[in-house]
Amino acid sequence: MKVFEIAPVKYIDNKMLVLDQTRLPGEEVYEEMHTKEDVWEAIYKLKVRGAPAIGVAAAYGLYLSVRDFRGTDIDDFAVQLKDAKDYLVTARPTAVNLAWALTRMWDKFEALGRVDVAAAKSALSNEAEAIRREDEAACFAMGEYGLSLLKPGMGILTHCNAGTIATAKYGTCLAPIYLGQERGYDFKVFADETRPLLQGARLTSWELSKSGIDVTLICDNMASIVMKNGWIDAVVVGCDRMAANGDGANKIGTSGVAILAKEYGIPFYMYVPTSTIDMDTPTGDDIHIELRDGEEIYKMWYEKPMAPEGVKTYNPSFDVTPAKYITAVITEKGICRPPYEKSLAALFK
Amino acid sequence: MKVFEIAPVKYIDNKMLVLDQTRLPGEEVYEEMHTKEDVWEAIYKLKVRGAPAIGVAAAYGLYLSVRDFRGTDIDDFAVQLKDAKDYLVTARPTAVNLAWALTRMWDKFEALGRVDVAAAKSALSNEAEAIRREDEAACFAMGEYGLSLLKPGMGILTHCNAGTIATAKYGTCLAPIYLGQERGYDFKVFADETRPLLQGARLTSWELSKSGIDVTLICDNMASIVMKNGWIDAVVVGCDRMAANGDGANKIGTSGVAILAKEYGIPFYMYVPTSTIDMDTPTGDDIHIELRDGEEIYKMWYEKPMAPEGVKTYNPSFDVTPAKYITAVITEKGICRPPYEKSLAALFK
Repeated sequence: MKVFEIAPVKYIDNKMLVLDQTRLPGEEVYEEMHTKEDVWEAIYKLKVRGAPAIGVAAAYGLYLSVRDFRGTDIDDFAVQLKDAKDYLVTARPTAVNLAWALTRMWDKFEALGRVDVAAAKSALSNEAEAIRREDEAACFAMGEYGLSLLKPGMGILTHCNAGTIATAKYGTCLAPIYLGQERGYDFKVFADETRPLLQGARLTSWELSKSGIDVTLICDNMASIVMKNGWIDAVVVGCDRMAANGDGANKIGTSGVAILAKEYGIPFYMYVPTSTIDMDTPTGDDIHIELRDGEEIYKMWYEKPMAPEGVKTYNPSFDVTPAKYITAVITEKGICRPPYEKSLAALFK
Repeated sequence: MKVFEIAPVKYIDNKMLVLDQTRLPGEEVYEEMHTKEDVWEAIYKLKVRGAPAIGVAAAYGLYLSVRDFRGTDIDDFAVQLKDAKDYLVTARPTAVNLAWALTRMWDKFEALGRVDVAAAKSALSNEAEAIRREDEAACFAMGEYGLSLLKPGMGILTHCNAGTIATAKYGTCLAPIYLGQERGYDFKVFADETRPLLQGARLTSWELSKSGIDVTLICDNMASIVMKNGWIDAVVVGCDRMAANGDGANKIGTSGVAILAKEYGIPFYMYVPTSTIDMDTPTGDDIHIELRDGEEIYKMWYEKPMAPEGVKTYNPSFDVTPAKYITAVITEKGICRPPYEKSLAALFK
């Protein structure tokens, strides 16, 4: 299978298909979405995950909610669309891209004025496709910029999953790996398993190996030894939110990898779509870190107890990598270098 | 339960008991050893683990092999003892303490000359007890030296398990925590879970919480954030083998923790019984790193596949922490500081 056959959300032959990521890597199932309730559940149950992929799913889901509308009254159509929008946004209230994509679809509809139902359907279908295509283009651009920093044959370490199945296509930090693969770069990728939820083991090593890329799975605590062995020439990671000074929040463990990279003299690249840069957040200290249930650490995956009953845990979802450890920030608009206060601000001028 | 009720090997009321560590933390079972075959199996199946604890188990196991000898011929007794020694040493051929303890027991017997059977039994029983007691004393001494480097209320991070159940009592790097607990130091301990075999989750958090010590379990990749949060004042770890220059091999992930500690300005203490210092190994580069089966990473603990079938893995058991990251080496003979070439050599003068 080529990478370009893997996508988290597809709309083909008038069918909306979602790759059920909760069943990976054991089963690879594309589930057809028939109703808005199907899409709501897919988002709620994390069958589709990754901010850009959620946005794409929501946009197609909203189109799906009116695709089979049989009336001719555009006001009735508007009511049905609005209800579906208000419903879908509840699937994951904290996912910024979810609300963003639904609002963009609604604004598109409103901007049409009083068109007939068929024209409205067509416009919404096109808008969903535009959202998907624009994210794909942004990822492709990040891939091109990122690839300019890499050389054939390099060893590359990644953490968590910021890959094709988290976006419309290509991924953010894995985009240069896919583009390099097409061009014979022959990268050797090392994937941190990424405890506690194992996105690296379950998702990154799955999508890379499916795409014929040389990937080696390691435990998070093995990053130091693979760097020491001389096997890593660059680290690539995604980003959940970047502050104006270049501090970047990403999956728990990212800051530790960045410190190791600095110690071993290895460049550390963070892939950050401009939609993820929050210029209203001055520094990483202003980013709230979500704490999750400790059972994810000691109970979730196991057949037998792996820690004493009632053990105290600390389970933050993210950590903040200070800007000083980040060699470059790769966006769809270009590569930013320190000082990030200036280079990030320049993106928005 | 007080810490002093937890020990991996006990000999009480003429019964040899082994805590089955493979059933921790789900079940806490002390299994009585009746025969040398029982002891062989306990060592082979890792019911007892940790170099010092294996030595103690082997010593008692060898005594057990002749405890019920009914003859009066000391030559027959010697044959039975020798057979048992040669048999027990095969349980884990690479465990240095296993052969060491058995040889010490045998040498003791030979040094007796031609005594009667009862005297030989008594001498062997005493020798096994001496091996246990000496290890306990060494751990206690490491605890006292280590405690001199710590202050009440400190936050302490540890990796893997070098605790009471890996030794005769107290542990190596956990010894100061137990001694501090008795003296009201009120440490806050953070235990890395220690992938892939989860010794931190299964063993360290178990023995500490059983002993009433405040312990918080984290994933290995959370060490950076707890340090950044200001919660860690010292890191304590054990050691599997230290080279003459102070480079120390320990459980995989230790070197990464050491680098983070340096970056955050936190002292990093390695607990190293002098028996673990190999003056014939010049540097850490000369220490062979054992590679283990990748299934430990992606299959061992899980109900469903956590990585794609056939994924490539790299699974080293240990890594080497360079001497430059080690603030002090704590031995039972005292505390060594850099330059370790000199301070370690002085231990053996």
